Amino acid sequence: MKRIEIFFKKLKQDYDSGRDPIDEIIKLGAYSLDKLNTEAKIKEQGQVGRKAYNIYTLNGEYSRPFLADAYVHKPLYLEKMWGRIIKSVNTKTRSIDVESIFIDRCLYTSVMSFACCYDLYKRSSRKTPGTYFEVILGSLISKILPNYIRSKHIPIPNVQESVSTDIVFSNSEKRKSLVIPAKITTRERIVQPFAHQRILDSVFGEGYYNSALLCVSEMQRDKNDNVKEICVPNTIKLFQNYLAKLSGIYYLDPPIRYMNAELHKIVDISSIGDFLNQKISNLT
Amino acid sequence: MKRIEIFFKKLKQDYDSGRDPIDEIIKLGAYSLDKLNTEAKIKEQGQVGRKAYNIYTLNGEYSRPFLADAYVHKPLYLEKMWGRIIKSVNTKTRSIDVESIFIDRCLYTSVMSFACCYDLYKRSSRKTPGTYFEVILGSLISKILPNYIRSKHIPIPNVQESVSTDIVFSNSEKRKSLVIPAKITTRERIVQPFAHQRILDSVFGEGYYNSALLCVSEMQRDKNDNVKEICVPNTIKLFQNYLAKLSGIYYLDPPIRYMNAELHKIVDISSIGDFLNQKISNLT
Repeated sequence: MKRIEIFFKKLKQDYDSGRDPIDEIIKLGAYSLDKLNTEAKIKEQGQVGRKAYNIYTLNGEYSRPFLADAYVHKPLYLEKMWGRIIKSVNTKTRSIDVESIFIDRCLYTSVMSFACCYDLYKRSSRKTPGTYFEVILGSLISKILPNYIRSKHIPIPNVQESVSTDIVFSNSEKRKSLVIPAKITTRERIVQPFAHQRILDSVFGEGYYNSALLCVSEMQRDKNDNVKEICVPNTIKLFQNYLAKLSGIYYLDPPIRYMNAELHKIVDISSIGDFLNQKISNLT
Repeated sequence: MKRIEIFFKKLKQDYDSGRDPIDEIIKLGAYSLDKLNTEAKIKEQGQVGRKAYNIYTLNGEYSRPFLADAYVHKPLYLEKMWGRIIKSVNTKTRSIDVESIFIDRCLYTSVMSFACCYDLYKRSSRKTPGTYFEVILGSLISKILPNYIRSKHIPIPNVQESVSTDIVFSNSEKRKSLVIPAKITTRERIVQPFAHQRILDSVFGEGYYNSALLCVSEMQRDKNDNVKEICVPNTIKLFQNYLAKLSGIYYLDPPIRYMNAELHKIVDISSIGDFLNQKISNLT
C-alpha cells in the first residue's frame, strides 16, 4: 500500500502543477486492481433493482460495494481500454469518440479499484479516493479541451474570496467556462454545486459559467449490510427550480431512481460516458 | 447516562408534539452539570485570544472544550438563572428583558453540560447535543412568540419538497416568518442557511421569510490538542453578497474574528443573548 500512496502523492503533485499525468493514472488503477486480485476476496453484497454489487474482503476488513457489471477484472485489459480512450480523444469535436458504456467501465474500474484499496488498507485516508477521481476527470478533460485553462478556484472580485469547485476549465476567448464539481457520492453536499452556480450567476451573469456535476454513484451500505441508493429527486428539483440551474448531473453508475422522464424534464441526468462523448461539446 | 438519554427522549417527543418542555430542559441541563461535577475532572485546555477553555476528562475520555468565563458550575444557580429568564419573557415587546450576557451564560451552560456528558459517556450519539440546542431555542422562542406557529419544514408548492430549516416560526396574519437554522458549529454546513434563504426568496419573494442563524461557537480542538476557532469571514461575505441575505448570525460564544466592524457592515453578527433581548422583535 505504501507504494500506492507514494505513487499517488507524486501523481497529485504533477496534476497540481498543471500537468495531465494520464500514464500514471492508468498505471495506478491497474496496479490497485492487481493488488486486489492478488490479496483480497470478492463477496456478493446484494442488489439494487437488477444491479448486482460485490465487495472485496481481507482480514475482516471490507471495501465499499462495486457494480459487478461495470467492473473489469484484468489489469492488462484495463490498460488497453485506457489506451483506446486516449486515442479516441477528438479535440476538434471536443469529445471522446468511443461508446459511452466503454468509457464508464474503464473510469469506474480505475476509481473503484483505487478506492477499494484505501477501504481495505488505509481507511483513515477517507478523502483520497475522491481526489483520485478528480485528478482522472481533470486530466482526461484537459486532453479534450487543450485550449482551456484548468484551475480549481474562481476568484470573486471585491470579497477576497474564491468559489472552490473542484475543477474549472476556462477559455477567455470564448467567454464560457465549464465548472466541474466532482464527488464520489453527493450526500448532503448536493447543495454545494447549486449554491456555487447561483453565486457565479450573481457575480458574472447567467451563461458565463456552466456547472456539470460528475459523480461515481449514490451507493451506500445500510445498517443491515445491504446496498442501497440514496436518492433525493425532489431536492434536486427544488434546487434546480429555485436555487440555480446545473447543466447536468452525470454518474459512472447512475442511480436507478434518477433515470426517469419526469426528472429529466427538469435537469439532464446521464452517464459520464455520455457527458464525455457528446454533452461536453455543447457546454464548451 | 441511561437516565439522561431516557429523559431527553421524552423531552424531544414533547417538543415534537408542539409543546415547550421548559421545565424538563432546565432539569436536564442541571442534572448533566451535576453529573459532570460529581464524576469528571476539569482540565485547562488552552486559550483563543483572551478566552480560556476547559475540558472535562474521565477514564481517558475527554469532552469538547468549553469557555470557562461563560460557564456556571452550580446546578442550583443554573436553575435559578433559567427561572429569571422565563419570568423576563415579554410577549408584548417580543423580547427577554434580561442582560444579554446572562442569557448567554445560562443557555451556554445547559447546552455544553449536556454535550459534554455525551462526549464522555456516549460519543456515538453525535447529533443529540445539537438536537438539545435546537429544542432549547425552539421552546424558549415559542414563549416569546406565542402567536406564532412553530414547525420544522417549509413546504414548497409544485415540487413535493420542503425546505428543512431546524426551526420556523410563522404568523399568517403578519405574513412574516422567522427561520432559525440552529447548529452547535457551522463548519462546511455554513452554505445551507444561505441556500435555503435564497430558495425561500425565489419561491415566496424577498422579505417574507427571514433567517437568523443561531450557533453555539466555532470552537474546535486541533491536531495538537489545542483549541482554535474555525472562521470563514470571506465565505460569509461571499454568501451574504451573492447567495442570499441572512438577517443575522448569533452565537453563545461569538468567534473573535467575526467581531469586527468590516464584517458587521455586511451581516449582523452578535450574541444569542442580544438576539433574544433586542433583535428578535424587529424580525417578527
